[in-house]
Amino acid sequence: MALEKIKTGVEGLDAMLNGGLIKGRSYTVVGGPGTGKTILSMHFLMEGAKNGEEGLFLALEESAMEIKENMALFGWDLRRIKIVDTTQDLSGKWSIKVDSAIAGPELTLNNILATLRDYINKYNVRRVVIDSLTSFKTMQKTGIDYRRGLLTLLKFLSTEGCTSILTIEDSDKEALMEEFLSSGVIQLDFVEHSGEWLNSIRIKKMRGSSYDQHTRPLKITNKGITIFSNESLFR
Amino acid sequence: MALEKIKTGVEGLDAMLNGGLIKGRSYTVVGGPGTGKTILSMHFLMEGAKNGEEGLFLALEESAMEIKENMALFGWDLRRIKIVDTTQDLSGKWSIKVDSAIAGPELTLNNILATLRDYINKYNVRRVVIDSLTSFKTMQKTGIDYRRGLLTLLKFLSTEGCTSILTIEDSDKEALMEEFLSSGVIQLDFVEHSGEWLNSIRIKKMRGSSYDQHTRPLKITNKGITIFSNESLFR
Amino acid sequence: MALEKIKTGVEGLDAMLNGGLIKGRSYTVVGGPGTGKTILSMHFLMEGAKNGEEGLFLALEESAMEIKENMALFGWDLRRIKIVDTTQDLSGKWSIKVDSAIAGPELTLNNILATLRDYINKYNVRRVVIDSLTSFKTMQKTGIDYRRGLLTLLKFLSTEGCTSILTIEDSDKEALMEEFLSSGVIQLDFVEHSGEWLNSIRIKKMRGSSYDQHTRPLKITNKGITIFSNESLFR
Amino acid sequence: MALEKIKTGVEGLDAMLNGGLIKGRSYTVVGGPGTGKTILSMHFLMEGAKNGEEGLFLALEESAMEIKENMALFGWDLRRIKIVDTTQDLSGKWSIKVDSAIAGPELTLNNILATLRDYINKYNVRRVVIDSLTSFKTMQKTGIDYRRGLLTLLKFLSTEGCTSILTIEDSDKEALMEEFLSSGVIQLDFVEHSGEWLNSIRIKKMRGSSYDQHTRPLKITNKGITIFSNESLFR
Amino acid sequence: MALEKIKTGVEGLDAMLNGGLIKGRSYTVVGGPGTGKTILSMHFLMEGAKNGEEGLFLALEESAMEIKENMALFGWDLRRIKIVDTTQDLSGKWSIKVDSAIAGPELTLNNILATLRDYINKYNVRRVVIDSLTSFKTMQKTGIDYRRGLLTLLKFLSTEGCTSILTIEDSDKEALMEEFLSSGVIQLDFVEHSGEWLNSIRIKKMRGSSYDQHTRPLKITNKGITIFSNESLFR
Amino acid sequence: MALEKIKTGVEGLDAMLNGGLIKGRSYTVVGGPGTGKTILSMHFLMEGAKNGEEGLFLALEESAMEIKENMALFGWDLRRIKIVDTTQDLSGKWSIKVDSAIAGPELTLNNILATLRDYINKYNVRRVVIDSLTSFKTMQKTGIDYRRGLLTLLKFLSTEGCTSILTIEDSDKEALMEEFLSSGVIQLDFVEHSGEWLNSIRIKKMRGSSYDQHTRPLKITNKGITIFSNESLFR
Repeated sequence: MALEKIKTGVEGLDAMLNGGLIKGRSYTVVGGPGTGKTILSMHFLMEGAKNGEEGLFLALEESAMEIKENMALFGWDLRRIKIVDTTQDLSGKWSIKVDSAIAGPELTLNNILATLRDYINKYNVRRVVIDSLTSFKTMQKTGIDYRRGLLTLLKFLSTEGCTSILTIEDSDKEALMEEFLSSGVIQLDFVEHSGEWLNSIRIKKMRGSSYDQHTRPLKITNKGITIFSNESLFR
Repeated sequence: MALEKIKTGVEGLDAMLNGGLIKGRSYTVVGGPGTGKTILSMHFLMEGAKNGEEGLFLALEESAMEIKENMALFGWDLRRIKIVDTTQDLSGKWSIKVDSAIAGPELTLNNILATLRDYINKYNVRRVVIDSLTSFKTMQKTGIDYRRGLLTLLKFLSTEGCTSILTIEDSDKEALMEEFLSSGVIQLDFVEHSGEWLNSIRIKKMRGSSYDQHTRPLKITNKGITIFSNESLFR
Repeated sequence: MALEKIKTGVEGLDAMLNGGLIKGRSYTVVGGPGTGKTILSMHFLMEGAKNGEEGLFLALEESAMEIKENMALFGWDLRRIKIVDTTQDLSGKWSIKVDSAIAGPELTLNNILATLRDYINKYNVRRVVIDSLTSFKTMQKTGIDYRRGLLTLLKFLSTEGCTSILTIEDSDKEALMEEFLSSGVIQLDFVEHSGEWLNSIRIKKMRGSSYDQHTRPLKITNKGITIFSNESLFR
Repeated sequence: MALEKIKTGVEGLDAMLNGGLIKGRSYTVVGGPGTGKTILSMHFLMEGAKNGEEGLFLALEESAMEIKENMALFGWDLRRIKIVDTTQDLSGKWSIKVDSAIAGPELTLNNILATLRDYINKYNVRRVVIDSLTSFKTMQKTGIDYRRGLLTLLKFLSTEGCTSILTIEDSDKEALMEEFLSSGVIQLDFVEHSGEWLNSIRIKKMRGSSYDQHTRPLKITNKGITIFSNESLFR
Repeated sequence: MALEKIKTGVEGLDAMLNGGLIKGRSYTVVGGPGTGKTILSMHFLMEGAKNGEEGLFLALEESAMEIKENMALFGWDLRRIKIVDTTQDLSGKWSIKVDSAIAGPELTLNNILATLRDYINKYNVRRVVIDSLTSFKTMQKTGIDYRRGLLTLLKFLSTEGCTSILTIEDSDKEALMEEFLSSGVIQLDFVEHSGEWLNSIRIKKMRGSSYDQHTRPLKITNKGITIFSNESLFR
Repeated sequence: MALEKIKTGVEGLDAMLNGGLIKGRSYTVVGGPGTGKTILSMHFLMEGAKNGEEGLFLALEESAMEIKENMALFGWDLRRIKIVDTTQDLSGKWSIKVDSAIAGPELTLNNILATLRDYINKYNVRRVVIDSLTSFKTMQKTGIDYRRGLLTLLKFLSTEGCTSILTIEDSDKEALMEEFLSSGVIQLDFVEHSGEWLNSIRIKKMRGSSYDQHTRPLKITNKGITIFSNESLFR
C-alpha cells in the first residue's frame, strides 16, 4: 500500500521524491540566506493552485507585498494563494494581518493556530507554508517552550490534514531539532566551484518513501526553480 | 559460558553482532535525521513478533498512525506490535495514549515507567523500543536530572528482563552520555561519495560480545534495511 | 513586471546586481575590519547625490568629521550627504548629534527612528545608510530585543520608502540573523593569495532579482571601490 | 632507586610501562564507548587475584551481575574480586549495595570513602578500580566541587596505599583535569583504517618512570586484551 | 586633500603604511604573546621623542622598571617617554602610580582618563600608548560596559588630538570589536616554517589611506623591529 | 646593558635562551599531561642548589613524597630544595603543610603569600616554582578574581626578587592570560611522528632577550630533560 503523494511543482524535485510529498504531512526546508527557500515553498503552493487547491502562506518575515513583488519575477499569478503577513502598530506590538485588515490578533502561538484554523476552514486550504519557523522560534521563551510549541503546531497541521512546508533559516551543517520532528527534510545550500557559488539541493530524510540520495544542482531562473536531477554536485 | 542472544531481524546486522543482541539488555541506536533509526527498531520488534514475542514501541515523536503508514512501505504486518504514542489535549498538555484511548496519564517519567510496566505485565512484552530518548531528555529539567532519569529507566528495563533499543537523535561524532550507560551502541550515518549520500552502520560498542568493527553500507529498500556486512565503507 | 532598480554607483557591482538594488528595500553589507563597508555605503549615497537625491548616513561609530576626512581620499564632495553622528557628554551619556548641535536626543531606538523620520521628511531623503547595525545591536538588552528592534527598523525604512544599506561588522562565515531578515546580502571579505590579502565581494542573496553568484576581486583605489566583475577569485 | 612496580596483567601493556604501574598510586584510563576501559581494569584486578591479592571494583554504572556476565566471555573466575555496585530504591534514591544487601548507605562522596575504607580494611584490598569517575563527577554540584572531591578521593587512596585505576568516559582529544591530577594516563581509542575501527592504546603520562611513547594496536579477543607493543598505529 | 601622517619609526612599517599613521587617530596593535606589541609601541613613542614630541606609555601590565630593562636591549634612551604604571598596596587595591609616587588614584576608567588628561596637558603629549586594552577590559563589568568604556576612551583621545596605539592581547584569527572601532589595525603574529616560528606583520585595516596588503616578515634584533616590506610570508 | 641571566640547568634550554632566564622575573611553563613541566621546574631548582642557592617548590597538586620519589629516577639529591605541599584534614579542609607539620594555615591566596614570604626570608630563597597555577586558579571565585590574584602573586615575586617558574596545565594551542602577564613562556608539547609521540619544547615569548624561535625535540632520560637545540621538529 503506497501512501498518496502530491507534487511540489518543481519537476526535478518530484523526480527526486519519487512522485512528491506524502499528503497530510509536514516537511522542513532548511537553508542559508539566498538558497531559495521561499521560492521553493511558493512553487509548492502554485502547484496546488493550478489544480484548484487553496494554499496558505504564513509570512512571518517579509510583507505580503514584498513576496508578491519577488514572485512576479517568475510570472506567477498568486491570486489563489492566501498570504497572511504580520504588522506592527505604533506602540511596537506585532499582530497578524487578517484579510489585509490593518489590526489583527497579537502574534502568539495560540493566535497563529486560530488564524490557520480560520483560513483552513473558510477556504478549504490543503497546502500550508510557514516562512519561517525561525521567526516562530523567537516567540518562545526557552528551547523547551519552542520544542513544545513546534510539536503543537505539527500536531495541529496533521489533524487538519494539511500538507505543509516549514522553512528554517540555517546555514550550519549540524542536524536541527526540527529535522528530527518533521516527516522529511530538504536541504538547500551553496557549493563553491572555482569562485562561483552554485545552488544545490539534497533530500536528507523522507519518512515512508524512497528518494534520491544525491546532492543535485539547482538553478533559479525566470521560471522559478529548476533542478537537474540527473547531475551530481560534489561538496 | 556464552550469553544468550536474540536476533535483530536485520540479517547483516546479526552477522556483525555475532548472533544478535544480548537478551535482557538495553542498546542505543544513534543517528541523524533520515538514517533509519525507526526502521531498524521496528525490524527488531518484527523479528520478535515472527517468533510469537510481544513487542512494545513507545512513540514519543511520531503518531502511531504515521508509524504504521511509514512501515507499510515494507509490507509489514504490525498487528502484534503495541505502539503507544502520545497526544495533546486542547489545553496543550501532553499525555500518554493508552490502548488508543484519547485521554491518558500525563507525560512524565513516572507515568512512562508505569505504562511500560502495565504493558509488559499484561502482554508479556519481551522487546521494547523507545523512540526517542531525545524526546525523553527534554522532559527533564537539567542534565543531571536526565542522567538520573535515564539510569532509572535503564534499571527498570533491566529488572523487567526486556531487551530494548533506545534511539537517540544526533548527527555529531562526539560520544554521548547514553552511549557510555547502555550495553551497546549502533551508529547510523551518511557518507558522501561523489555527491551521493550513502547510509552506513557501525557498531561502536557491544559489552559482553565480540563484533564486527567495520563501517558497513546500509540500504533502505522496500524490504526494510539491508546491510552489506562484507563490504567496507570509508568515511 | 520587473521591479524598479537604483544604481549603487559602483559600476562592477551594478553589473553583478543586474542593474542595482531594488528601490525601497533594505540591504545588509557584511564584512570584517578593513573590507570596505563604509566606502561602499558612501558610493551608494554619492550615486544618489549625483542625481539630486538626498542621502542620509547615520554614523553610529565614527564621527562625521572622520568620515569626511576618510572619504576625501576619493575626491568626493559630500555636501549633499547628511551625516548624523553621535556624541558623548561629560556625564558619559551618548546622544544623537542633530544638525551639528552639540546636545541632542539620547541614543535609543525610538530616538533613532524619530531622527530618521525628521530627516527623511525635511530633506526628502531617498537613500539611507546605517553604519553599523552592530552598534545598534549593543543598545538592545537581549538577542530577542535586538531581533524585534531590527524588525521595527526594517519595517520603518520600508514604510518610508527608502532604499537602505545597513552594515554589519562580522568576519565569520556563518550566516547571521540580519542576512535572513533583509532583502539582500553583500559580503565583503579578504582572500589570502601568496601572502597578499586581496579584497573580495560576493552577493549572497538578492530577493526579487537574478544576480552574479561569483566571488569577485574588489580594489580600493583613489577613485573609491572598483569591482572586476569579469574576474574570478577562489577562496 | 627504582620505585616498586606491579603488573597490570596485560602483557603488552606491562612492556610499554617498563614493568607495570608504580605501587600505591592512582592512574586514569580514558576512552570513548567500547574502547575497553572496563576490561583493562578487570585485567588489573585479575592479575592481583592471581597472586592472592584482594581487588575491589566499585561499579558506579553497570550492575555487578552485568559485569560478571561480560567478563565471563574471557573465562575469568571473578570470585576473588569484590564488586560493589549501586542500586535504586522505589523512591528513586540511589545507594551503595554493600555485600549484596539490597539497602545500603546513600550514594555520596563520604559514603563512598567509608565503604572503600571498610572493604580495604576488612579484605586487605591492594588494588582498586573505580568505574567510572564520570559517574562520580555527576554527584558533585559544580566543577570546583568535583575537583575538590577528586583530590580528596586521590588523597584517600594514596593514604590507604592502594594502587588504583579510575576510568573516565571521554572521546575528546583535549586533556582533562583528571589527567593532570593522577600519576599516569592511559588513553584508549579507535583509529579508522580503510573503514575498519581498530582499537588503540597510548600512554600519555607516567610520573616516575620511562615508558613507550607509541600508539599501539589493541585487540579484544576471548582472552581479554592483547596489545601489540612492537607494532605502530598511525592516527 | 591628503591627511597628515606621522611616522611610526619602524622604517618598513612606514613604507607599508604609505607614510605612517594618520595624525590624531587611534590604532590597535593585535597579537599573541611574544609577537612584539610592546616593542612596536615603543618605537612609535621613540620616533616622536626623536623629534622633540612628548610620549606617554600607560603600562597596565608590566612595571615601568621592567619596560625600561627590556627596552635597554635596543639601546634606547627612554628619558623623554613618560611611563605611567600601576601599583598595588598592602590591602590589595590597585592604583595608578603618578610621577613615580607610590600612592595614586585608584585604577578606574575615570581616573585613567583624568591621569591621561593631566599628562597630556602638562607635557603637551602628542603620542599615547595604552598597553594593553585587554587589561582595561577586565576593569569593566560586562561586555557592553567595555564597549562603552572603549568608545569613551577613543572619543577622549580623539578630542585631545593624540595619535594613539592601543595593544590587544589575542592570538585568535577572528576579528575583535576593537578592530572595528579603531581607525586601523596592525596584526602581529607567528608563522611556522619548518619548525621555526617566524614573526610576521599585516595591516588589516587603515581608514583614510591606502596600504600594503601583504603579510610581511618581521624580525626583532638588537635595534628593535625590522620589517622586510619587500618580502612575502605565506601563512 | 645586558640583563643578568641565570641558568635553568637544562643545557639545551639555556642555549635556546641565550644564557638562561632573566634574574628576578616570573616565567610560565605551559603543557599538557606528561610533557615534563615538573621535571623542567626541578632542573631549574637543582641548578640553583648546585651553586648553593636555596630553592622553593610549592606543590599544589602532588605530595612532597611523590615528587621526591619521581625525581629519584634522575638520581637527584633534593635535600637543598624546600618542597611545601598541601594536606587535607578529616573535615575536608585543605591547608598548607609548613615544615612537614601536619596542620598549617588554610590554603588561601593570602596564606600562600605569607608562607612564600616566610620561606624566602628564612632560607634566603632565590628560585621559586609554583606547580601549578591551574590549581591556584581553582581557588579563585571568578576569572577576574584569578587575574587579580595572579597579578598580586607576580607583583609579590617580583618585589621579593625571586626568579620563578609557574607551571600551567594546558594542552590547547590558544594563548592564555598567564602567557601575556608573565615575562616569558615556554611551551611543552607532544608531536606525533609515525605513531610515536615525541616531546617538544618551544619558547613562545621572552621579554628583554633574544631567543631561539624553533620547536626543538626534548627527551626525558634517566638524567632528566635533554634538549636537542640543533635539531628541528615539525608540527
